[in-house]
Amino acid sequence: MENSKVNSPPPSWEDVVKIKRAERHQAVAPYLEQEISPTDPITNIDDIDELAKQIETGKLSSEQVIRAYIKRASAAHKATNCLTEVLFEDAIQKAQNLDEFYATNGKAIGPLHGVPITLKDQFNVKGKDTTLGYVGLALKPALDDAVVVKILQNLGAVVIAKTNLPQSIMWCETENPLWGLTTNPLNPEYTPGGSTGGEGALLALRGSIVGWGTDIGGSVRIPSSINGLYGLKPSSARMPYQGLEVSTDGQEHVPSAIGPMTRSLSSMVTITKAVIDGEPWMLDPKVVPIPWRESVYNEVQNRPLVIGIMIDDGVVKVHPPIQRALKELASKLKDAGHELVDWEPSLHRECIGIMDQFYTADGGEDIRRAVEAGGEPYIPHVEALVNRGKPISVYEYWQLNKKKTAAQKAYLDKWNGVKGAGSGRVVDVLVTPTMPHSAVPHRACRWVGYTKIWNVLDYTALAFPVTTISATKDPVPETHYEPRNEMDAWNWKLYDPVKMDGHPVGLQIVGRRFEEEKVLGVAKVIEKLMGR
Amino acid sequence: MENSKVNSPPPSWEDVVKIKRAERHQAVAPYLEQEISPTDPITNIDDIDELAKQIETGKLSSEQVIRAYIKRASAAHKATNCLTEVLFEDAIQKAQNLDEFYATNGKAIGPLHGVPITLKDQFNVKGKDTTLGYVGLALKPALDDAVVVKILQNLGAVVIAKTNLPQSIMWCETENPLWGLTTNPLNPEYTPGGSTGGEGALLALRGSIVGWGTDIGGSVRIPSSINGLYGLKPSSARMPYQGLEVSTDGQEHVPSAIGPMTRSLSSMVTITKAVIDGEPWMLDPKVVPIPWRESVYNEVQNRPLVIGIMIDDGVVKVHPPIQRALKELASKLKDAGHELVDWEPSLHRECIGIMDQFYTADGGEDIRRAVEAGGEPYIPHVEALVNRGKPISVYEYWQLNKKKTAAQKAYLDKWNGVKGAGSGRVVDVLVTPTMPHSAVPHRACRWVGYTKIWNVLDYTALAFPVTTISATKDPVPETHYEPRNEMDAWNWKLYDPVKMDGHPVGLQIVGRRFEEEKVLGVAKVIEKLMGR
Repeated sequence: MENSKVNSPPPSWEDVVKIKRAERHQAVAPYLEQEISPTDPITNIDDIDELAKQIETGKLSSEQVIRAYIKRASAAHKATNCLTEVLFEDAIQKAQNLDEFYATNGKAIGPLHGVPITLKDQFNVKGKDTTLGYVGLALKPALDDAVVVKILQNLGAVVIAKTNLPQSIMWCETENPLWGLTTNPLNPEYTPGGSTGGEGALLALRGSIVGWGTDIGGSVRIPSSINGLYGLKPSSARMPYQGLEVSTDGQEHVPSAIGPMTRSLSSMVTITKAVIDGEPWMLDPKVVPIPWRESVYNEVQNRPLVIGIMIDDGVVKVHPPIQRALKELASKLKDAGHELVDWEPSLHRECIGIMDQFYTADGGEDIRRAVEAGGEPYIPHVEALVNRGKPISVYEYWQLNKKKTAAQKAYLDKWNGVKGAGSGRVVDVLVTPTMPHSAVPHRACRWVGYTKIWNVLDYTALAFPVTTISATKDPVPETHYEPRNEMDAWNWKLYDPVKMDGHPVGLQIVGRRFEEEKVLGVAKVIEKLMGR
Repeated sequence: MENSKVNSPPPSWEDVVKIKRAERHQAVAPYLEQEISPTDPITNIDDIDELAKQIETGKLSSEQVIRAYIKRASAAHKATNCLTEVLFEDAIQKAQNLDEFYATNGKAIGPLHGVPITLKDQFNVKGKDTTLGYVGLALKPALDDAVVVKILQNLGAVVIAKTNLPQSIMWCETENPLWGLTTNPLNPEYTPGGSTGGEGALLALRGSIVGWGTDIGGSVRIPSSINGLYGLKPSSARMPYQGLEVSTDGQEHVPSAIGPMTRSLSSMVTITKAVIDGEPWMLDPKVVPIPWRESVYNEVQNRPLVIGIMIDDGVVKVHPPIQRALKELASKLKDAGHELVDWEPSLHRECIGIMDQFYTADGGEDIRRAVEAGGEPYIPHVEALVNRGKPISVYEYWQLNKKKTAAQKAYLDKWNGVKGAGSGRVVDVLVTPTMPHSAVPHRACRWVGYTKIWNVLDYTALAFPVTTISATKDPVPETHYEPRNEMDAWNWKLYDPVKMDGHPVGLQIVGRRFEEEKVLGVAKVIEKLMGR
């Protein structure tokens, strides 16, 4: 028997794909048959607090909530191919346990009792694969839950599914040979963005109320922006990465951060605070013990702010609706008595030039090994990435890291030097585009300079929705625009206000390192100005 | 003229040494002639607060204080060869300016008004060399002050000198071809420890009241322990490293940390708080914005503690006086109602095995380049280090870093799992040896496993003095000790209670990441128990 086992050939990559997709299909199929109304009162609640309150007061059971979300998630998957590992049966079981707890004890188990959550397929959930979209990682169930999953589950949250991401993770779209292509909820020919694109599509279709992604260049903020969501990239040591799989793991100088994605700002504040209140530094050696600072969150909501506005990074000009969104917002901020400062993109090119070298400092070996372990083909973007350059030596790597630190210092000095003309106070936060475009056709996403700059600096950045594209309000400008470079020309050509009509337009608020409370507080100010 | 300049050969390394030593001699010589009494009332004040108070109330002028310290520092240098860059004239000028400020304004410029400080020759001081003990870095004055120097100077502190360190920094002794060998204040045939050995000798001889060093394997704590001082290695992102030169710069996965060395615990608390209150995160992009937490500092002083005691790391057994010191202290802690737990050295060997690979992941290239740039000979320890192994690839480096993170997680889990039998509470801090020996003959220092484990974990550790060796109390044990390994045998043979009689014996208090306030609070508890 042992011999025959040794001699049997390993399954081909196509076989693994078949197995995994069949598993997924089987798990989703029963719920696809159960229709859910677009006005379903459960999944139309965007705020975690509101949902939790309804459960806590007995108006809804956990099982009702989880079943409603499972139906929505199934429909979302059918529409966009957003799911990978499906945990519906487990989730229902857990919801029943929670209901039992509630019946017995007359109270919720924690502030997230019965609240569904979903996870990009990088977060370990015990007994489930963490594929990263790699065939070679399929059929290897995780031995433990990720730290953030433990913290959320302890508060009563229920994981219902894991979601799709691109091969290698290092892309702003969502496609891999294992799970296939995830599409935009509003247009199947468009991308939902990436790399946390499965979450983006799922949340936009109300198949989840909190999704968790990772962001090493914009991967939480890009799909948030494209799908009209809130997406937070905290400083990397604020939330626990322990128990995630990631490509180029061990490369920490441009750190990946985990971050939540939500449908409301209130949910964003609640979930961020919940994780930090869970003292993740007791379970993850990299997390810094900074408790949730309510005073910082409140303070910025009660005074005039100094806000840096950067409308153009000098490399790729943003599409007209993004310009409109930022200008309209800036005008509202000014009218409300806040001080605005033009933020120059100086140092951005230099910082990005440095960070790009980190991604492939190993000459692509990490990603190449991961793809070759499964045997599946490369997607073209990844093939180009792994062949971008030769590995550098560790000595050169250290020199690169010194350059990075010097750039971080220069940027900090730059920030310290920019003050409001009236108040003389240093800039509180920046408001900038997230991407130079909203949703675009598949495989058209290229320039992520607006997001990745904050990764190399490890600053806090929150993507938030502002408006939608309007074919009438946002026509192609009549005057010819002369692009500055190939990337700029590429981006400008993508703009199509008729096809893009109705797609969400988002921006981001940027604070310095570990300024999560400040950024969320400013978001609250902005929401009020936008009449939310 | 220009041509003749280009064609003139660069000075030989011997010439550079002559120039630098002549500069130093010239700067020190005038003060060597000015005697200072061993009972000088100014330099016999160990507490910064007390010294600052005397200046603030007009009992002492800044110039009096600085001149007294300069005399002591000159005498200390004559005895131990501890200084590198000498800033006496600058310091007197600054002291005079401070006195003028005081006369004009009737108050001190800040809480460190007129307090002398000294710096290991890694900290940039504008206009002075930062040699690291390398000939190749001599005659290249720094363009700006290090961040910590700026913060301290803003509070009124005055830099009087920079101090010696070993070639490469990566050693527990203090010797380099540029500045020579620094000796132990109590015995010229013994080492003051290292790598911050110049500070160790200088502070022990009262030539400074606060010294600043760096610690990547014990370099602050070892000379503190050997010279009867307090030495703090904070978590690396707590205090600003910006503006320091360091070998293997860019290697951050086993991070070097800056830390103060003082002659009293009170001074240690004052200086640590002062730097953190200076908000170093506004000037150094790596520092984490955790303010000084007075409540944590106080809380541990007012309750029974759970203390892990590790008397032996299982590799190198400590000399009898260190064992005595730890046992006596443990007994006092127990009598005072604190709960003691035996701390097993499990994971220590594994962690140290990983960290050693980081130091030379570049195959010694960084240090080799630095030595070759100057042309001076290697000291034998450094020659062995740079030839220890071949460089690894960046991909392998990332794998090594993953191993490190896994080890850090394992250690954190270990800590969480050790509880006081009575209270059931998790261990607050550990008390362990700093070194397996006190001062030893030159070039005999080898095993730094007791200190370096806390660098790879990036925990907080405070070295503090406990007792002195007594030839009568600490005889060589009559029963034969069978060493476990070569290193253990080496260390055991070094023990010579007659020659070592009177040398200080220190221990260290260890807390987890960013637990500086906790560790200092516990030190306060221990000081009281020791009757200080």
